[in-house]
Amino acid sequence: MQYVWIHDTLTPQEEAGVSFEDRGYYFGDGIYEVIRLYDGKPFLWEEHFERFTRSAAELDLPFPKPLENIKEDMLHLIETNKVHNGIIYMQMTRGVQERNHLYSREITPVITAFTKEEDVPSHLQEQGISLRAVEDIRWLRCDIKTINLLGNVMAKRSAEDNGCHEALLHRGPTVTEGSSTNVFMVKNGVIYTHPADNYILKGITRQFIQKLCIEKGIPFKESAFTLEDLRGADELFIASTSHEIVPVHRVSGTIEKTLPSRELTDELQKTFQERKLS
Amino acid sequence: MQYVWIHDTLTPQEEAGVSFEDRGYYFGDGIYEVIRLYDGKPFLWEEHFERFTRSAAELDLPFPKPLENIKEDMLHLIETNKVHNGIIYMQMTRGVQERNHLYSREITPVITAFTKEEDVPSHLQEQGISLRAVEDIRWLRCDIKTINLLGNVMAKRSAEDNGCHEALLHRGPTVTEGSSTNVFMVKNGVIYTHPADNYILKGITRQFIQKLCIEKGIPFKESAFTLEDLRGADELFIASTSHEIVPVHRVSGTIEKTLPSRELTDELQKTFQERKLS
Repeated sequence: MQYVWIHDTLTPQEEAGVSFEDRGYYFGDGIYEVIRLYDGKPFLWEEHFERFTRSAAELDLPFPKPLENIKEDMLHLIETNKVHNGIIYMQMTRGVQERNHLYSREITPVITAFTKEEDVPSHLQEQGISLRAVEDIRWLRCDIKTINLLGNVMAKRSAEDNGCHEALLHRGPTVTEGSSTNVFMVKNGVIYTHPADNYILKGITRQFIQKLCIEKGIPFKESAFTLEDLRGADELFIASTSHEIVPVHRVSGTIEKTLPSRELTDELQKTFQERKLS
Repeated sequence: MQYVWIHDTLTPQEEAGVSFEDRGYYFGDGIYEVIRLYDGKPFLWEEHFERFTRSAAELDLPFPKPLENIKEDMLHLIETNKVHNGIIYMQMTRGVQERNHLYSREITPVITAFTKEEDVPSHLQEQGISLRAVEDIRWLRCDIKTINLLGNVMAKRSAEDNGCHEALLHRGPTVTEGSSTNVFMVKNGVIYTHPADNYILKGITRQFIQKLCIEKGIPFKESAFTLEDLRGADELFIASTSHEIVPVHRVSGTIEKTLPSRELTDELQKTFQERKLS
């Protein structure tokens, strides 16, 4: 039987429910993280909890118990469900309160979590994907990993409806990120990606790639690029906890572009594979 | 006993729960309406359902049953709970699906609703309120009444923390609306409010006020005004289903301004009171 974590307890998945007065359900008032497990071991565990802590602080969300205890709870769920290769998803909403835009600081946040056995999408990593370029209409605090995800959801659906695997969001001329991934352009041997400001989520995999690039001496620039810059790109790839590193072979939508190469992307993915299990 | 509406049935409020896999809980993937009841009768009922239908269409959300049947369900809940003066809140999320940004078109939306006995805030209408001017950082489809409300929630909290009742959102120099209200400026006998485009929610009370103004020959301009324009304003008021019409006596934050008058606001509120029961 698979369990989920709700309100401090392991609950059989089929019985899992939350209060209809949870502010997560009324306002999307909450945050989340998705962490990968390789061979049963969480990957970049501390980094995810650091971001979780920052998201909570930015939204004035207190932890209902010390962070170390929350980590123990999540490890307990992982062990109980015997996850080998997969993910743990964890969410924290502000808690249960009679509906009111004005939140109370007296309520207790609700932590929920589930795990899932899920292989990395190796077919996407091998074949590459296409992206759909669409305008980024999200709010101006995309740096907080909140569950207010409608902008991302609509972009993802639009990508799929146009035969693409993922969206390429751009705010006016400037490429920001994907619907649930960061985006990287390679041009003349240099990797470019949007700076980690309020317009994008600072991906944990993005951070790890940056570290790998520094170690390997690959130029990595946190510098925004435009759709126009993309016309002259050699490679394009996306990265996320779920995808790892996936090459892009084509972009359609606001811009049409076929990427001529994937050499550096493949090299990075190879390094990532070696490092993720070490 | 008070009932709530969940999944096609009346449920005692204390037993009310929703699936933790509801997309409303993972993504804020849903829409809502709040409708007032005066003397047990819903006010501007059709108008609210028209907007609900538009919100659903904009988010590619199908109705799980004909709209007429949904209206009957809501009336049934109102009658069961014997609401006299209060509100009905109804919400529709996309439904239950294993977590994935990409929504399925095969799932059934979940309608939930509650009612509440709640008087109109006559003390606010009499005394007036203060507003806190803060930057509007929300997404670019504020015309859809979604439950992705974190931007509104944070603005409301900021207003309260600064001793104000409501936020005055402005995108750069341009005033848009409040956190859960529309905003109107009076200058030289003319009422100004932001046009009903993608930057604001087209309030049902706003529409009703527009209609009253036309009937009474009060100039009403759907024309955006700036913080600078506000410096020369004679009156300022907010309007919403919950508030009706409430005068503003002071604005603080990005701009500091005391409003010298409330004459036209009071006249409108008087007319509103007469018409709401007719």
